[in-house]
Amino acid sequence: RPAPPHPESAAMAARLCRLRRPLTAAFSSAAAAGAGQAPPAEPLTERRQAGGVRTIVLNNPRRRNALSLPMLQSLRRDLLHDVKSRELRVIVIAAEGPVFCSGHDLKELSSEDDVKHHSQVFELCAEVMTLIQKLPVPVIAKVNGLATAAGCQLVASCDIAVASEKSQFATPGVNIGLFCSTPAVALGRSLPRKVALEMLFTGEPLSAHKALMHGLVSKVVPEDKLEEETMKISQKICESSKSVLALGKATFYRQITQDLDTAYKITTKVMVDNLTLRDGQEGIEAFVQKRKPVWSHSQEEKK
Amino acid sequence: RPAPPHPESAAMAARLCRLRRPLTAAFSSAAAAGAGQAPPAEPLTERRQAGGVRTIVLNNPRRRNALSLPMLQSLRRDLLHDVKSRELRVIVIAAEGPVFCSGHDLKELSSEDDVKHHSQVFELCAEVMTLIQKLPVPVIAKVNGLATAAGCQLVASCDIAVASEKSQFATPGVNIGLFCSTPAVALGRSLPRKVALEMLFTGEPLSAHKALMHGLVSKVVPEDKLEEETMKISQKICESSKSVLALGKATFYRQITQDLDTAYKITTKVMVDNLTLRDGQEGIEAFVQKRKPVWSHSQEEKK
Amino acid sequence: RPAPPHPESAAMAARLCRLRRPLTAAFSSAAAAGAGQAPPAEPLTERRQAGGVRTIVLNNPRRRNALSLPMLQSLRRDLLHDVKSRELRVIVIAAEGPVFCSGHDLKELSSEDDVKHHSQVFELCAEVMTLIQKLPVPVIAKVNGLATAAGCQLVASCDIAVASEKSQFATPGVNIGLFCSTPAVALGRSLPRKVALEMLFTGEPLSAHKALMHGLVSKVVPEDKLEEETMKISQKICESSKSVLALGKATFYRQITQDLDTAYKITTKVMVDNLTLRDGQEGIEAFVQKRKPVWSHSQEEKK
Repeated sequence: RPAPPHPESAAMAARLCRLRRPLTAAFSSAAAAGAGQAPPAEPLTERRQAGGVRTIVLNNPRRRNALSLPMLQSLRRDLLHDVKSRELRVIVIAAEGPVFCSGHDLKELSSEDDVKHHSQVFELCAEVMTLIQKLPVPVIAKVNGLATAAGCQLVASCDIAVASEKSQFATPGVNIGLFCSTPAVALGRSLPRKVALEMLFTGEPLSAHKALMHGLVSKVVPEDKLEEETMKISQKICESSKSVLALGKATFYRQITQDLDTAYKITTKVMVDNLTLRDGQEGIEAFVQKRKPVWSHSQEEKK
Repeated sequence: RPAPPHPESAAMAARLCRLRRPLTAAFSSAAAAGAGQAPPAEPLTERRQAGGVRTIVLNNPRRRNALSLPMLQSLRRDLLHDVKSRELRVIVIAAEGPVFCSGHDLKELSSEDDVKHHSQVFELCAEVMTLIQKLPVPVIAKVNGLATAAGCQLVASCDIAVASEKSQFATPGVNIGLFCSTPAVALGRSLPRKVALEMLFTGEPLSAHKALMHGLVSKVVPEDKLEEETMKISQKICESSKSVLALGKATFYRQITQDLDTAYKITTKVMVDNLTLRDGQEGIEAFVQKRKPVWSHSQEEKK
Repeated sequence: RPAPPHPESAAMAARLCRLRRPLTAAFSSAAAAGAGQAPPAEPLTERRQAGGVRTIVLNNPRRRNALSLPMLQSLRRDLLHDVKSRELRVIVIAAEGPVFCSGHDLKELSSEDDVKHHSQVFELCAEVMTLIQKLPVPVIAKVNGLATAAGCQLVASCDIAVASEKSQFATPGVNIGLFCSTPAVALGRSLPRKVALEMLFTGEPLSAHKALMHGLVSKVVPEDKLEEETMKISQKICESSKSVLALGKATFYRQITQDLDTAYKITTKVMVDNLTLRDGQEGIEAFVQKRKPVWSHSQEEKK
């Protein structure tokens, strides 16, 4: 088990929010996660899987789960691990400790590192964020605490986000002279423009309820219901055919940036293709025959 | 009058929602509406018009108002009927029975039909959905009950949507192995991404109040106020010039997918054109002269 | 000080909203502001600046702060005045009187003026609206009252909008035969489509709370807290580096219309560039050294 959170970390971050002082404590300067050092004793992410549900836990609470290069690599590895397996049907990204994720590791962005190293950090981060949408299974953020900067971007980049009532979301890069321009990509596609810009310009946190009202998360529950609600959504997803969900997810992101006529052209063809899938015909036959469908999860067409 | 709803239909659909079991009962397998059969005794849609307001009622409650090919054809016919008439100023799409619309008729999507037939179904559906935005009058969805799959898409495709508090919205295609990819086109343009994806991945219903919060509908009222509120909006629309509304509606959809500079280039020209319309000058003259405008509803320029 | 509002103006406008009669009184027919006449004794806008915060007050309450050509010119001048100065860090657009802004001056849109003159009005208006997004500092709308037509567009065009609870927003162009097609550009990018279209088709006002729920404004407070809340946001912005905010703002609007991969390509490069700014390195150094950053506000790279 990880050590208890550093006393100066998350509690302070939350307090700083309340005091309306800069959210600098929301950032991490996790030297331990730096390149060229001995790998940490504990893995930076924990991956467990049961009943089709893979849970990836950001597991560096002492460093507020900073998205250091090793953390991003570990997260990418866990996201991609055996992703085509029929046993994997949904991924939940959770976190250990009171801070869900504090964004980049600032030690990796200091002037001592060169531009090439900085580029590597942001490129890997963008790769992981876009990877989430490219995965063939739904990815759910399960947030119980503070998500800031690239950590807020991570939530915004998931397909679904469930948050406890105490959760908060912020993009406080302005406090350290580094505007959250990459998080803004995900925020600007999840929130109304004015809400996103107020967050980006001020660094002030958005409460869970406002995050729900404005669409950054799709569900907010009391903290003691967070596990139950996340599992309910996950299990509902597990009742469906993997191949059908994979087709649907890929199509959603493909059509959403197109004009209406193109979007319908794409999806009309996809609907017909979906019907030729084994599970497409099985689903409709089962419905007509008033029985439960038996999914193959296969991407093959019927016959 | 149509027969009372089939006991196994809408009430069960609603109950299934509450039980969080798959929403299969939200689909229809309306054999009676199938191609190559005798046409039903009752028309599938009812069209009535008074005081500029055309109401089109989906009128096959025993089959949960499934969007079968004949239903889509009937709806298209009623939408297009004499659409340029000055007597037509706004269209309301309503429904008979406790299910507003249950989406496609699954009997038309079985393996017995070939790909060509399936294509025809989705193409006609997409045609009707995009037609709504191309009509020269505002189209209002008046929802009092459950709207699922392509039925939910129909609501999302209207210009305005008013719903009673008991209404629910769902895209449960995943339950029958057919991801709601065409409904996702309309949902993805009406709802925040996470809310749309949670609906699409789980098939779970969205309450009327959440639909309002997230923008899928523009007004929610108690069931006994639904008619009054819909008529209030309709009558307000009838007080305006048809030609001015037609120009504004077409322009809205034309500019909304453009970048800001292009959007302003388009609309700046449209504003000037609008002023050259008879009703453009009449409106301003009436205002300056402190009298009620008398609209011609003509698309001609003044003089 | 301006004269008290014309008794037939704002109070009546608000009353007309409540009566659900056409919002014609929301428009202005400010002859005094017409071209070719003696300039008004009072400036149409007032500009004051203190502590980095520039406040521009629309100052023609007797004419409901109509966006006449002289008003638009005055607003543009105040927005652009010495905009690169390090002393300027945020702009607040406020208004004198109970109507924030009533949109175009209809006297400038009558048939007596020719198409060329009408074009000039809409082109200048679009120029000012897009200028707001191009400025290197955040622009906040501080709304305390009714904002209609191009006045509503002005609110929608700001980066951030704070409104008092009594504020209302409407696009009542349909009442005078002039569809709010240019305001629709800004509204359609700030509000869910159905909410925007219901406003545009009916002209009916949106309350402050609904404007918040739907994203047209980012904060709503009681009237007696409006100044305090606006200043809190402004002062928070003044704590950050001007050059960092300028880079972030320009990047936000540049990436938001792009596809996801392009958006990340643009912003990944911007993050690296941000780190090379003096204030980029100063912020991170200060954080690591646990001291308050001292911003240069310079656009130069470090060393």
